[in-house]
Amino acid sequence: MKVSIINIGDELLIGQVVNTNASAMSQMLIAAGIDVNEVVTIGDGGDAIRESLARCLKLSDAVLITGGLGPTKDDITKTVLCDFFHSRLVENAVALENVRRLFAIRGFELTPVNRAQALVPECCQVLNNDLGTAPCMWFEQDGKVVVSMPGVPFEMEWLMENRVVPKLQETFKTGAIVNKNILVQGIGESFLSDLIEPWELALPKCIRLAYLPQAGMLKLRLTARGTDRDELQGAIDEAVKTLYPIAGQYIVGEDCETLTELVHSQLTAKGKTLATAESCTGGTIASQLTAQAGASRYFRGGIVAYSNEVKECALGVKHSTLEQYGAVSEQTAREMAEGVRERFDSDYAIATTGIAGPDGGTPTKPVGTVWIAVASRTHTEAALLNFPGRRRQQNIDRSVNQAFAMLIRMLCQKD
Amino acid sequence: MKVSIINIGDELLIGQVVNTNASAMSQMLIAAGIDVNEVVTIGDGGDAIRESLARCLKLSDAVLITGGLGPTKDDITKTVLCDFFHSRLVENAVALENVRRLFAIRGFELTPVNRAQALVPECCQVLNNDLGTAPCMWFEQDGKVVVSMPGVPFEMEWLMENRVVPKLQETFKTGAIVNKNILVQGIGESFLSDLIEPWELALPKCIRLAYLPQAGMLKLRLTARGTDRDELQGAIDEAVKTLYPIAGQYIVGEDCETLTELVHSQLTAKGKTLATAESCTGGTIASQLTAQAGASRYFRGGIVAYSNEVKECALGVKHSTLEQYGAVSEQTAREMAEGVRERFDSDYAIATTGIAGPDGGTPTKPVGTVWIAVASRTHTEAALLNFPGRRRQQNIDRSVNQAFAMLIRMLCQKD
Repeated sequence: MKVSIINIGDELLIGQVVNTNASAMSQMLIAAGIDVNEVVTIGDGGDAIRESLARCLKLSDAVLITGGLGPTKDDITKTVLCDFFHSRLVENAVALENVRRLFAIRGFELTPVNRAQALVPECCQVLNNDLGTAPCMWFEQDGKVVVSMPGVPFEMEWLMENRVVPKLQETFKTGAIVNKNILVQGIGESFLSDLIEPWELALPKCIRLAYLPQAGMLKLRLTARGTDRDELQGAIDEAVKTLYPIAGQYIVGEDCETLTELVHSQLTAKGKTLATAESCTGGTIASQLTAQAGASRYFRGGIVAYSNEVKECALGVKHSTLEQYGAVSEQTAREMAEGVRERFDSDYAIATTGIAGPDGGTPTKPVGTVWIAVASRTHTEAALLNFPGRRRQQNIDRSVNQAFAMLIRMLCQKD
Repeated sequence: MKVSIINIGDELLIGQVVNTNASAMSQMLIAAGIDVNEVVTIGDGGDAIRESLARCLKLSDAVLITGGLGPTKDDITKTVLCDFFHSRLVENAVALENVRRLFAIRGFELTPVNRAQALVPECCQVLNNDLGTAPCMWFEQDGKVVVSMPGVPFEMEWLMENRVVPKLQETFKTGAIVNKNILVQGIGESFLSDLIEPWELALPKCIRLAYLPQAGMLKLRLTARGTDRDELQGAIDEAVKTLYPIAGQYIVGEDCETLTELVHSQLTAKGKTLATAESCTGGTIASQLTAQAGASRYFRGGIVAYSNEVKECALGVKHSTLEQYGAVSEQTAREMAEGVRERFDSDYAIATTGIAGPDGGTPTKPVGTVWIAVASRTHTEAALLNFPGRRRQQNIDRSVNQAFAMLIRMLCQKD
């Protein structure tokens, strides 16, 4: 079974809003064993909607549409769909009751504009949208399905999870899909590709491999498709097992999308705490960790020590260390990590100090020179990185992932 | 002139990576006066690439393609394009020199797999990709243009800015365009829309207005299109001048894309320094500021005070304050801002403390309750925010922008 996704909205097309709906929908579909053929983003225009829908209906078994269901004039999806299916708009009792309920909760008066939200094409089935006034509409024609949902992300996500995906699985007999992520660090894409080529060629036909590069690391994704979930899981497990003897030294973890997630889950699982002392990464490590709900269980806090004075006064880096070795040095990185770990009384600490660029390098310490230190209660490790590029954000992101990889490797060591 | 965008990548199609390339490309195109017809996201499959390309070529003057140019087997865009244009792969001297240069910088040996990056269809023109080994390929056929770029965001952005957009403007003679951003904070979109409606209706025909909402704020973008750049600039200047008497109290700045940029430029221009004390924003303020080159001129450092212990030991928040008022309170926010400003000896300081969600709220302090304080050498201001949603990242981003707006307003006060 294959679906196409059509995301409607001028704000998406002009780049004002990043289309996060597409990835959220795809993730939910893939996890349910439903393949996505393509994602189309178009503006709020009748021709574009009609043409995309007609084309996607030829291509796919179902077409999932988001957006253009608001009460204002620029939202035209509903009337376009009504024409497309040669239907007429009628007031739907379920949708009207839903609009009434939501307005009662908010204490607002129901205006004619809002009441019009309950008008739907006569030929569709309304899937109740518990979180909003725009109805979710399910159309069937010649064995194919078209679903129209609001573009508001949390309404769309709730509808997909509770209404649309279950009904798609019921309507179409969906196959099984098993995904597996492997996070790899410390080797470039082309070198890894050479290294694991024999293994890749020997993979069973049901498994596809994808290389997904992130800053300073790689995610390998194995996708197995077929009918029997257990069989696919077995094939994936076997493939992963045989990968370790070849590339195990570069594998930092499995089953996460990012190293941030991996650090988050490992620190949470082990009940260990972390503190950070960031210079060149400027708070990005702390920001990425605290973006995840539950970070307060392990993250005690961090210091962004951008100036030398702050490195001294807030982290206890010795004045003589800064004078003798400079801010970007192994000694400073180590004292930063040890200083914040002691001050914040955490089990582990990460420190970064370097020259992110694009300027600020010297002949002996060019842009891209970064020292990272990771400290535990018993010892400290440090690593020197020499990133080739002058791109600030890239050097920051690579430093963050390098620091996370070092922390994960230390977390996996036997104490 | 209209373009279609095709983003290729299984990782996009299955939702493992959010397609930020689409919005970044659209923004750059729109700013250059080039309209976007549609954005199509497809997987790394030959049929999908061929069919989408053929269709988009009918629809648009140019088709911009990203992705599928890596050295590994799953990347097939180049060979598909080669077939599409009935060409053959040849080693391109410019591309090979570029690959050599990048490998020399990194100190790596050039493997056959990497050398193959320099193979391109004979019929295309190579636009040099200074930042990566995947070549940017420019095809022309029957007055239409196809451009293939790597999907790595920073390479794509650099290529768009330095190679692709200028060449599109030159090829299609796109006319003059002048953009103007106005950052607005403290008023909702619909209220602002009502307030400035007469002004908007009186704008000259060459000017288009767009509302671009960001977290907790709005960017108004005026776009003037025509033939004479000076004339367009004059029309824009006049429009902005007449906006101030109507909505000046909500305008925090001009000519920046974000409040972060505005804070960066104002602190730099005024020669003032800043420190941060972040709880609920978890380092995001520091991270956003230090993402900009030159932040070290004004940013002394920050403390991410996630636990109460850190608020006390690193910021000097009084134990009695935390006990009496709690971590999420005006008193704590003020003591955090004043504490970090004094300790880091900065001219200004920002502090945030709140409940970002999705959990952790209480009846008196529900999710979305955030206190922000901004301190100068002479006084401290604090504000309570009550965000309606439980979405963690949204509440963090809104808090950051609110804090930046408060700082900018304080920076503009006469001392």
